[in-house]
Amino acid sequence: MLHFDSDYMEGAHPAILERLTATNFDQTPGYGTDAYCEAARDLIRAACKAPDASVHFLVGGTQANAVVLDQLLRPWEGVVSADTGHIHTHEAGAVEACGHKVLPLPHRNGKLDAADVRALCETYWNDANNEHVVAPGVVYLSHPTEYGTVYALSELEDLAATCRDFGMRLFLDGARLAYGLAAVGSDVTLHDIARLCDAFYIGGTKAGALFGEAVVFTRPASQENLRTFGHALDERFFTLVKKRGALLAKGRVLGIQFSTLFEEDGGEIRYQALGHHAVDLAQRIAQGFRSKGYQLAIDSPTNQQFVILDDATRERLAHDVSFGFWERTPDGRTVVRFATSWATKPEAVDQLLDLL
Amino acid sequence: MLHFDSDYMEGAHPAILERLTATNFDQTPGYGTDAYCEAARDLIRAACKAPDASVHFLVGGTQANAVVLDQLLRPWEGVVSADTGHIHTHEAGAVEACGHKVLPLPHRNGKLDAADVRALCETYWNDANNEHVVAPGVVYLSHPTEYGTVYALSELEDLAATCRDFGMRLFLDGARLAYGLAAVGSDVTLHDIARLCDAFYIGGTKAGALFGEAVVFTRPASQENLRTFGHALDERFFTLVKKRGALLAKGRVLGIQFSTLFEEDGGEIRYQALGHHAVDLAQRIAQGFRSKGYQLAIDSPTNQQFVILDDATRERLAHDVSFGFWERTPDGRTVVRFATSWATKPEAVDQLLDLL
Amino acid sequence: MLHFDSDYMEGAHPAILERLTATNFDQTPGYGTDAYCEAARDLIRAACKAPDASVHFLVGGTQANAVVLDQLLRPWEGVVSADTGHIHTHEAGAVEACGHKVLPLPHRNGKLDAADVRALCETYWNDANNEHVVAPGVVYLSHPTEYGTVYALSELEDLAATCRDFGMRLFLDGARLAYGLAAVGSDVTLHDIARLCDAFYIGGTKAGALFGEAVVFTRPASQENLRTFGHALDERFFTLVKKRGALLAKGRVLGIQFSTLFEEDGGEIRYQALGHHAVDLAQRIAQGFRSKGYQLAIDSPTNQQFVILDDATRERLAHDVSFGFWERTPDGRTVVRFATSWATKPEAVDQLLDLL
Amino acid sequence: MLHFDSDYMEGAHPAILERLTATNFDQTPGYGTDAYCEAARDLIRAACKAPDASVHFLVGGTQANAVVLDQLLRPWEGVVSADTGHIHTHEAGAVEACGHKVLPLPHRNGKLDAADVRALCETYWNDANNEHVVAPGVVYLSHPTEYGTVYALSELEDLAATCRDFGMRLFLDGARLAYGLAAVGSDVTLHDIARLCDAFYIGGTKAGALFGEAVVFTRPASQENLRTFGHALDERFFTLVKKRGALLAKGRVLGIQFSTLFEEDGGEIRYQALGHHAVDLAQRIAQGFRSKGYQLAIDSPTNQQFVILDDATRERLAHDVSFGFWERTPDGRTVVRFATSWATKPEAVDQLLDLL
Repeated sequence: MLHFDSDYMEGAHPAILERLTATNFDQTPGYGTDAYCEAARDLIRAACKAPDASVHFLVGGTQANAVVLDQLLRPWEGVVSADTGHIHTHEAGAVEACGHKVLPLPHRNGKLDAADVRALCETYWNDANNEHVVAPGVVYLSHPTEYGTVYALSELEDLAATCRDFGMRLFLDGARLAYGLAAVGSDVTLHDIARLCDAFYIGGTKAGALFGEAVVFTRPASQENLRTFGHALDERFFTLVKKRGALLAKGRVLGIQFSTLFEEDGGEIRYQALGHHAVDLAQRIAQGFRSKGYQLAIDSPTNQQFVILDDATRERLAHDVSFGFWERTPDGRTVVRFATSWATKPEAVDQLLDLL
Repeated sequence: MLHFDSDYMEGAHPAILERLTATNFDQTPGYGTDAYCEAARDLIRAACKAPDASVHFLVGGTQANAVVLDQLLRPWEGVVSADTGHIHTHEAGAVEACGHKVLPLPHRNGKLDAADVRALCETYWNDANNEHVVAPGVVYLSHPTEYGTVYALSELEDLAATCRDFGMRLFLDGARLAYGLAAVGSDVTLHDIARLCDAFYIGGTKAGALFGEAVVFTRPASQENLRTFGHALDERFFTLVKKRGALLAKGRVLGIQFSTLFEEDGGEIRYQALGHHAVDLAQRIAQGFRSKGYQLAIDSPTNQQFVILDDATRERLAHDVSFGFWERTPDGRTVVRFATSWATKPEAVDQLLDLL
Repeated sequence: MLHFDSDYMEGAHPAILERLTATNFDQTPGYGTDAYCEAARDLIRAACKAPDASVHFLVGGTQANAVVLDQLLRPWEGVVSADTGHIHTHEAGAVEACGHKVLPLPHRNGKLDAADVRALCETYWNDANNEHVVAPGVVYLSHPTEYGTVYALSELEDLAATCRDFGMRLFLDGARLAYGLAAVGSDVTLHDIARLCDAFYIGGTKAGALFGEAVVFTRPASQENLRTFGHALDERFFTLVKKRGALLAKGRVLGIQFSTLFEEDGGEIRYQALGHHAVDLAQRIAQGFRSKGYQLAIDSPTNQQFVILDDATRERLAHDVSFGFWERTPDGRTVVRFATSWATKPEAVDQLLDLL
Repeated sequence: MLHFDSDYMEGAHPAILERLTATNFDQTPGYGTDAYCEAARDLIRAACKAPDASVHFLVGGTQANAVVLDQLLRPWEGVVSADTGHIHTHEAGAVEACGHKVLPLPHRNGKLDAADVRALCETYWNDANNEHVVAPGVVYLSHPTEYGTVYALSELEDLAATCRDFGMRLFLDGARLAYGLAAVGSDVTLHDIARLCDAFYIGGTKAGALFGEAVVFTRPASQENLRTFGHALDERFFTLVKKRGALLAKGRVLGIQFSTLFEEDGGEIRYQALGHHAVDLAQRIAQGFRSKGYQLAIDSPTNQQFVILDDATRERLAHDVSFGFWERTPDGRTVVRFATSWATKPEAVDQLLDLL
C-alpha cells in the first residue's frame, strides 16, 4: 500500500533520532532553559534574520495557535481568519475555549484578502456602537493554506500594512511552513515572514520532527508593542504556556529537534531542504496526473495536491494507495488529496504514477 | 558535578529510543489511532487489571491534570486538593484557566485526609445556601505527593468511599507513579489504583519516557457514571483533548513509549523496574545521610529525599552536587531535595555519599 | 424631537412601578425564592401551557443568551446561529467568553433555514474526522429576528424536527417576543414556542419592564434530556447563573415585573397587549411610508420598520426625528430603522407621518 | 414576625421609586449613556473627591467582583483574598469562571493583614521558579468584611503600600460600603478609599437601591497604569461588561438610583445617612444583647451583629424573629447574625430587645 494520506505519517528525520540518542544521558534543566534550546533559538533567529526575536518551543499546531492567540489578543479583541482557516474549522474550538472569538471572512483559494480585512476593520471602526462588537485584534494566516496555496510577498505586505493601519497584530500559522518556503514560484522568504509578522510559528511536526512548533515573536519589545500593551508582546509567555498545559518538561527534546532541523546539511538549512524534497515530489505527482488527463481542483505549488477523481477511478486507486477525502464536487466526483512529506520516497511517487 | 535536582534531567530509557528508531519509517495514522497506541493500551489495561478501562496518551502532567479535570467536573463543581497539591501551587492556574475552582484543604504530610474531605462535603451538603457555593465534585490526589509520601491502601479506600458517599469522582495524579508503586513498605498496587479511582494517569515524563502521561478512565461506562453524566465518563474526551490543544499529531510517539515501558523486561514490567531502581538509590541516599547524622525533614519512601542542611554544609555540598531548594526552616537551616530517577547511576550515589 | 431609535427608551409600564411601590416594604427572601417570583412563574407556565416548565428570571438579553447557552451546551458542542444573529454580531463575544463556539450559517431575511441547519449537521456527522470539529449542539433562533421578521409555525416545526433528528437542543431568543407574538399574520403562539423549543426567554426589557428576561426550560426533566445529560436540562442552573454573575439579589424586583406583565388587563395578558400596541403603530408607520412612495428594505410584520432613505430626506427627517442607522445600500442610500414599543404614543406616529 | 435575616429584604428608598416614576416616560439612550447616569457619576466623583475617576454602574456584587477583577488582572496574575472573602466562598466560582485564580490567605477577623500579603509577595518574587506560579496581581478587600469588621485607615494604607511595592492593584468590594462608612469609630472616609484603591465599588443593593453597584476606577489613566498596561485601567471596560453579560440596557435605572442615593438629603449625602441609620440600630441591638448578658462572637461596628445563642434561646427567639445561621461553636452553641439595613424600623429593634 502506498500512503499519501498526510504529511505526518512517519517519525522524524534520522539525524534527529541520532542526536536524541547521542545526548540521551546528558543532564539538563527543564522547560526549555537548556543549551540545546538556546542553540536552536540562535539558529532560528539567524535563519529569520531577526536578532531581536524571542523563540519558544511548543508541542503541536492547535496548541500553538490557541496559546499564541491568547497571548496576542486583548480581552475585547477577536482574530480575523479565512472561513477555511484551521482555527475556525478543525481545532475543536480551541481558540474559543480560551475565550476569544474567531471572525471569519470568505477565503480566496484558502487565503485572506487584504481588501476584505480592511473592509471588516472599516466597518468596525466606523460603527458608533462598536463597543458592543468584538474588535479585530489579530489577523491569522496560514502559509501554506489548507488548500496548499501560498501568499505572494505583495499579498503579505498588504496584510501587514492593513494590520498596521488598524492597530492589529499579524500572526502566521506555519504548520507546513517548510513546504510554503519551498513552494514553486514563491517570492516569500523566512526573513520576509519574520519582517512582516508580529508572531508566527515554524512547524516541525509535519516537516521532519517527531513533534514541535517553534513560535517566533519577531520584535516583542518594539516601541509599538510597548505602547500598545505596556509590556513586550511575549511578556510572561512562559507562564501562559504553562497555564495552557503546553509546557514540555524536557524542553531539550524540542531544542534538539529544532537545532537539528535548522543546522546546515550540504550547504542548505535542513528544514528548507526537507521542504524542497516534498514539494518536488508533489509537483511530480501533479504533473503526472495532469499528463494523464486528470483534473486538479487547485493549482497548488506546495506538497498537497488536490485531484478530482470519478468514483470508478477513486475506487480503483484506493486498492493500492491511501489518500485523503476532501469534498464531493457538484457533478458527483470527489476531490482527494495526495500529500507528500520530507519522508516520501521517490519510488513511491513512481509507483503511484504507474497506477494512473 | 553530580545532579540530583530533579527526576527529568535525562532523555528516555534506551529501549524507547531504539524502538523509535526501528519504527521510524513505518507509516501510521495520527492522533493515537495507530497500532502502537493500541498495543500500549492493551498492556496498560492488563497491568491495571482493568479490562474496561479507556486509555489516552497526553504529553505532560499539568496538561493531563487540567484536561482530565475539565472532563470530570460538572459546571457547578470544583476539585478538592491538598493545599500543597501541584494543581494548586505550581501549574500557573491551569485548572482555573478552564473555569474550575480548586478547593484547598490542609495537607497531612502532603496528603489529603479522608476525614477532612468528608467534613468539607458535609459542610457543603448541610448548607442550605450551597447553591451559591462551588460543589466538591472531584477529589485530586497525587501519589506520591509533592513531599514524596504515599497513600496507604486503607487511606485510598477511605477516600474512595468518601467520594462514593458524596457523588464525587476520585482522580489520582501519577506523575511519579513509578516511584509510588515502588515505595518502601507500600501496600498499594496499580490494580488498587485502577479499582479505587475513576481516573488517574501513569507518568512517563519522570519515569523513563521522553515525555507522556497515560490517562486511564477505569470504568468510563459504569452504571454509576451513566446515571450521573448521561454518558460515559470519557465521552468525547478526544475532542476535549483537541480543544485544549493537547492532542499529539503523531500519537505513535506516545504509543511506542508506553508500550516499551509496559512490556516485561527480565520478568518485570519495565515501568515498575525503573521505579524500583530510583527508589532503591534514594533510600541509599537517605540512609547515608542519616548514618552521618543528618536530619531528614520527611520520612519519604520514594525517590525524593528532603534533607535539612545548615548553611555551611549546604554551600560545601553545592560545590560538587546540584539539588533542589525546598524551604527555610524556622531555625535558619534549609530543606533541600535530592531526587533520583530511572537514570540515576549507582556510582553517582556513591560519590554523593562520599561527600557527606 | 420624536424618538424612534429603539424599543427601550422609556422606563416601565406604570402598573409595574405602582406594584413596586405598593410592595416596597414587604420583606422577602432573596435570589428569586420569594412569592412574587413564584406567582410570576405560575402565570408564565399557564400562558405557555407548559406545566412542567421551570422559569428563571435574568436581567438582560446578552446575559440570558450566554448563560442559557452555557447550560445547554456540552463541552464538545457549539451553537448554530444565523450570521446576523445577535449572539454572533452584537454581544461582544459573550458566548465565546464562556468557551463556546458560534457556528454561523447564512441568514434568510434574518432567519435560519432548517435545510441549511440539516446540511451542516449532515456534513458534521458524515465527517469521519469530526472529533476534531465543534459539534452542532444547540440551534439559536431569535423571534423576531434582527430584521424584524418572524418564523412561521411550519418553519419552527422544521427546525425542531432537525434538532430532534441530530440530538440538538432548540433555543429561542425572545428579547422582542412580545412583538413576535403580535406580528401581523403570524401563526406562532407562546404555546407553540414552549412546545417546540427546549428553552427560550420572554423579553421584558424591550416590552414593558425596567429590565428582565424570563428564561423558560420547557421540559427540563424529560426522558430525552435525562438520557442526554444524566440530569435535568436546568440542573443547578441557579448556580450557573450565580457563577456567571447573573443572579439578582432582590429577585422580587423581577418577580413583580413579570407577574405584572403576565396578569390579564382588560381580558388580555398585558405582555401580549403591549406587543399589539407596538406592532399596530409600527404597521401604521410602514403603511405611511409606503403610501408616500418610500421603499421599505424588509417586509417586517413586527415593531421594527426598515426604510430606505436618500441622503436629503434622511437629513431632513433627522431634524425632527431620531431613528437608527442600519446600513448603506449599494446605490448610496441608507437603510434606517424606526422602532416602536409598548410606550410609543399614537400622536408621535401621527407627527412622524406628517413629516413625510 | 421580625426580620433581621439580611440587609436586602425590602425594595428601595422611597425617593428612588418616586424618581423612577417621575422620569418614567423620559426617553433616553441606553447602556449608561444617558444624563441620569452622567449626573450620578458627577455626584459620586464629588463624594469621592476623585475628579479623574471613571464610574460605571453594574447590577450586582458578584458580577461587579468578577468583571472588575477580569479587567484588573493580567493573564498571569491571580487575586489575593482573605479565605473568608466573598469571592472565595460564596460566589460559585465566578472569578475562576473568568479564568483567574483566587489566592487565599488566612483572615484576621475577616480582614487581610498587610504583613501576610507582603509575605506572600516576597515568597512569590523570591521564588526562582515563579514562572510556574500564579502571580499576585490584585489584592481584594471587602469593607466591611463578611464579619462586619472594617479596616482602620492605617491598615488600608499598609495594604496600599504593599500593593505599590509589588506592582499590584488594590480593589475594594463595597457591597456594604454604606455601613462601613458609618461604622462606629471608623477613621476611613470615601475619599480615603478613592485615594488608596485602584478600583472599588459602592454597593447599592444592600443600601437603599433596588439593585446596583457603582464601580469606580479612581485614576484609570495614571502614569503608573499606563506604564503597566499600555492603556488606561478602565480601557474598554464597557466592552468587557457587555462580554460578561453585565451591561444593563436601560442604564438610566442605575443612574436614577445612584443620583438619588448621592444627592444631599437634610445636609447629608443620602447614601451615608442610610448607612448611619442601619449602624445606629445595629449598635442598639448589640448593646441590648450585651446588657442582657448575651455574648457576641465578634465586636462588629457595622450593621451586622453576631450573637452566640444556646439552643433553647435560639429556638425561643426563632418563634418571633428570623435571623441568619452563621456557625456552630465548639461548645455546642450557635452564632447567629442579626442584620439591620437602611429600611429597618426602630420599633422592630424595640420589639426584638423586648424579647431578650
